Amino acid sequence: MAADRPVTIKDIARKFKCSPSTVSRALNNHPLINEDTRRNLQEYAQKVGYQRNSVSLSLLNKRTGTLGVIVPTLNHQHETAIIDGLQSILQPLGYLMNICVSNESYLLEKEYVEKLLANRVEGIFLSISQETYDSGHYEHLESIIQRKVPLIFIDREYEGFDACRVTIDDYYGAFAATEHLIKMGCQRIAHLKGPHGLAVTEQRYKGYVDCLAKYQFPLEEELMVTTNFGVESAIIPTQRLLDLPHPPDGIFGVNDQVAIGAMYVVRENGLEVPNQVAIVGFDDSPISAYIHPTLTTVKRPGKQIGTEASRIFLSQLKDSSPNQLTENIVLSASLIVRESTLRTNISPDQGS
Amino acid sequence: MAADRPVTIKDIARKFKCSPSTVSRALNNHPLINEDTRRNLQEYAQKVGYQRNSVSLSLLNKRTGTLGVIVPTLNHQHETAIIDGLQSILQPLGYLMNICVSNESYLLEKEYVEKLLANRVEGIFLSISQETYDSGHYEHLESIIQRKVPLIFIDREYEGFDACRVTIDDYYGAFAATEHLIKMGCQRIAHLKGPHGLAVTEQRYKGYVDCLAKYQFPLEEELMVTTNFGVESAIIPTQRLLDLPHPPDGIFGVNDQVAIGAMYVVRENGLEVPNQVAIVGFDDSPISAYIHPTLTTVKRPGKQIGTEASRIFLSQLKDSSPNQLTENIVLSASLIVRESTLRTNISPDQGS
Repeated sequence: MAADRPVTIKDIARKFKCSPSTVSRALNNHPLINEDTRRNLQEYAQKVGYQRNSVSLSLLNKRTGTLGVIVPTLNHQHETAIIDGLQSILQPLGYLMNICVSNESYLLEKEYVEKLLANRVEGIFLSISQETYDSGHYEHLESIIQRKVPLIFIDREYEGFDACRVTIDDYYGAFAATEHLIKMGCQRIAHLKGPHGLAVTEQRYKGYVDCLAKYQFPLEEELMVTTNFGVESAIIPTQRLLDLPHPPDGIFGVNDQVAIGAMYVVRENGLEVPNQVAIVGFDDSPISAYIHPTLTTVKRPGKQIGTEASRIFLSQLKDSSPNQLTENIVLSASLIVRESTLRTNISPDQGS
Repeated sequence: MAADRPVTIKDIARKFKCSPSTVSRALNNHPLINEDTRRNLQEYAQKVGYQRNSVSLSLLNKRTGTLGVIVPTLNHQHETAIIDGLQSILQPLGYLMNICVSNESYLLEKEYVEKLLANRVEGIFLSISQETYDSGHYEHLESIIQRKVPLIFIDREYEGFDACRVTIDDYYGAFAATEHLIKMGCQRIAHLKGPHGLAVTEQRYKGYVDCLAKYQFPLEEELMVTTNFGVESAIIPTQRLLDLPHPPDGIFGVNDQVAIGAMYVVRENGLEVPNQVAIVGFDDSPISAYIHPTLTTVKRPGKQIGTEASRIFLSQLKDSSPNQLTENIVLSASLIVRESTLRTNISPDQGS
């Protein structure tokens, strides 16, 4: 080592035959560095009079302790549950989370990606916006990969893009919800759809359609109406369903909010839930077990998306080899049966 | 102007007799720069061959287009409504929002403040954590003021700290909710409190207590029980209330979730809402108007907190003089009467 210049991380790395980033992680008390390694490196650095330069250190190894999370909205309990799952694992390890809301806009999502990369986040968790999904733009995602920043899709993914992901089997959940209404004896089953163009909308719609086909129910356009996920957005569409010459006797709502709106309209029309109209939601939001009647729904493990995505991120930190496996985790959605579908008037020839 | 060095922002500012930060804002298309000024400055800059240096520009005037938002939790609709209000005003002006969740931890809140300042946010919107409130630490807030970054309290504030704030009159809302139960003929009114130590808990509790005192109702310890704001946290406390030798005939829940939990328990005990037990919540969450029975509640203008705080921030940008007024806005909370309190069995001598 030359005596006329300060000791650098590279000098220490050469001495220990490890990478400079291992040295700097050890000197920064990174959680993933083995305790012995950390102590040995820190003792040596002190002995040779290493002076850390936090700016160049951060430029060298990207250790900022910050992670980026981009979600399309915060208005539903599902997204906040995902964030809760991420925080429950990563905040105790010392990570700070930058949460960004794209408002379903491709441009905002892109700007947030750029800003997060400029701020040197160590990983990005992304649930893509509706506009990104529709437009097919993914240059901003490629820039994440080029910068070697781990990218993990949470909940809403880009199917054609090679990155790890944790999603929920919405198709199966919707199939199970529809099948349950059929088994409860419903003859005409309506679907309060989500907004057009979202994968989550399409997958639940497809689950509904395929289930009707399996049981040889006709597919009727007039029984499928669109909402925007909010409770109020279900009011007019449900009234329109009840005003049909042949109104439905079962309704599958795209989420719990919409199902609660439908229950309200059914009641206002002097009809009884579940015997005259049975209703299923989707989400298992906390209140669904306590409203009257209690709501049959499909449980989405939102928090688990966050904890699984955290696990993938941590495993990527440990093993940053280019041949690393791309993990694709699909969590199952499970039907929870409550009062809003438990009909007491099923005739013996039904529910087969 | 010397010919042997590049034209700088200071040169342009001298020429136009304005501040360098006005020049750099104009060259960066800052929303608050007058259209004519922007065009004149941009044309001149182009004419003299000004080359922008985005790094030094950003160091000079802190124009990063990024704002920080720190909230204690994202688990309730109220916080997401505040964020929605901020975004509705500030995102169209080109600002990106970094949302951070302190999980009611002073340490995390402090770390987020440091990180946001390091990333040169142009303003910080803060709803303080329970720990910060309890501990009385506010050095991290002073560091924001020292850096001349606008700090605006949203919803939860530090009373003794000199910064702008937008809050809600929780005390009055709780008083009105309790008074309404008295007018509806309730004789024994219980309160499902929020977690200990939060200002929001204390103010609603005080509104309840003062209202009982005004109407000469005795204050009974056994009628005040604690929840954690979640629907499930109301179940056991409400059952305990109903098991009392003299159970309540009115319940004021600290929020809608807790009130929905209480309605569930009342119903499970074979009692009727509102005639046997009348129930009021707090928040006016979207579903409160659609559940059965519909829930009487106190409307908290969460989104308006965000829009008012945005307005204050923008006015601070325009006028950065040290003698600027500290704005303290208290939004009113209003009672919304629905089925859960509309008793049909009020005797003529009641409700005076």
